[in-house]
Amino acid sequence: MIKQHTVSAFEDEMQFLTHKIAEMGGHAEKMIGQSVKALTTGDVELARAVIKDDMRLDEGQREIDDKAVLLIAQRQPMASDLREVFANIRISSDLERVGDMAKGIAKRVSSVSEYSHGVKFARGLEHLSELASAQLKEVLDCYGTRSVDDVNNIIERDEEIDAMYTSLFRELLTYMMEDPRNITTCTHLLFCAKNIERIGDHATNIAEATYYMVKGHKLDPARPNEDKTHKVSLD
Amino acid sequence: MIKQHTVSAFEDEMQFLTHKIAEMGGHAEKMIGQSVKALTTGDVELARAVIKDDMRLDEGQREIDDKAVLLIAQRQPMASDLREVFANIRISSDLERVGDMAKGIAKRVSSVSEYSHGVKFARGLEHLSELASAQLKEVLDCYGTRSVDDVNNIIERDEEIDAMYTSLFRELLTYMMEDPRNITTCTHLLFCAKNIERIGDHATNIAEATYYMVKGHKLDPARPNEDKTHKVSLD
Repeated sequence: MIKQHTVSAFEDEMQFLTHKIAEMGGHAEKMIGQSVKALTTGDVELARAVIKDDMRLDEGQREIDDKAVLLIAQRQPMASDLREVFANIRISSDLERVGDMAKGIAKRVSSVSEYSHGVKFARGLEHLSELASAQLKEVLDCYGTRSVDDVNNIIERDEEIDAMYTSLFRELLTYMMEDPRNITTCTHLLFCAKNIERIGDHATNIAEATYYMVKGHKLDPARPNEDKTHKVSLD
Repeated sequence: MIKQHTVSAFEDEMQFLTHKIAEMGGHAEKMIGQSVKALTTGDVELARAVIKDDMRLDEGQREIDDKAVLLIAQRQPMASDLREVFANIRISSDLERVGDMAKGIAKRVSSVSEYSHGVKFARGLEHLSELASAQLKEVLDCYGTRSVDDVNNIIERDEEIDAMYTSLFRELLTYMMEDPRNITTCTHLLFCAKNIERIGDHATNIAEATYYMVKGHKLDPARPNEDKTHKVSLD
């Protein structure tokens, strides 16, 4: 009977981690959408709400970390369960970083919206952020259903995000060259675009951690994701 | 006798983690120095070596992760040891990211060095990178000696890095406004500067993880580190 009780408490704790990750994931997706909406509409109030909201992801990660350490110390889980605990720790850390990226975008809203062409230039980021959001959503679905057969295809789609980011990077440089008054705003937008590109990378990390959790071995071959703007030259 | 053997094997494995972290730390410091040297001298060969070298930090992190999971599964460490294992996992992840930051700088060397004023503009990053390197070194010394009394003072110094980064950000924007031909190169340098600023953040993370490892509770108050360039406006 005691054994039964222990197993069930253990399962409850594992469930807690899974639910918490799902909750953090939903929250991270919402933050991406809202931060980019704030940027493309110049909604400083919404931006402020996103910045404040980021605390919830920080707390989520802390809760998962604390629970995971306690769970390992008290229950001494077997290899496969231990793998799941570790995957949860990693995934929550990536989701917390996604929140930081959204917050980083939100923090630039006020500077961008002050400039007459800011909101117009910002619209170029909409599609990029939709791609990154969709990527994150698909990856979190894999986590939720524990089905990783399609993970490689999803990860490959990160290349689309990278390609669009590179083209946006060039576009923003062009605006800067056309008129020096565009420079400060476009620089802020370059950093926003970079943040979205990095959300794609975090989605890839989550996909890899989910794969490892389900299959017990690492995904091969290594992911192709990479910022390619270092080669960009318009001089 | 068997107990004795187990304890000693456990200590060996903990020692392995500690040594590996020290090795990764030394390597990360070297990569920062070399990437910025490559940038400020236009040394494309050195940049290429740094990019290749980053693999060693990736491997280091993987080794620590694998060893940590195995150690927890086989030895079922007590709370304080478990805390140390977790701290090592976190620190190795931050060091791997520091390597990524240095690699990111190295990847932009070729674009920056192609432009006539690139190397000259890049010199502004030297002092920032010295601060970040010194910060990382001090934090790793805390880890090595397990003495965390001074950790709060070290973390506060990250504000200096943030302040210098903001001033560099403004300086680079000014060059861009002075001459549109400077724009592409200065944009690359802005991203390099951002990478160095983030090395300071990773140093702060490592300091916090070390504190938690030694003291068994989290550091208070929350760190002040934050990119403040979102407020920059030169229009």
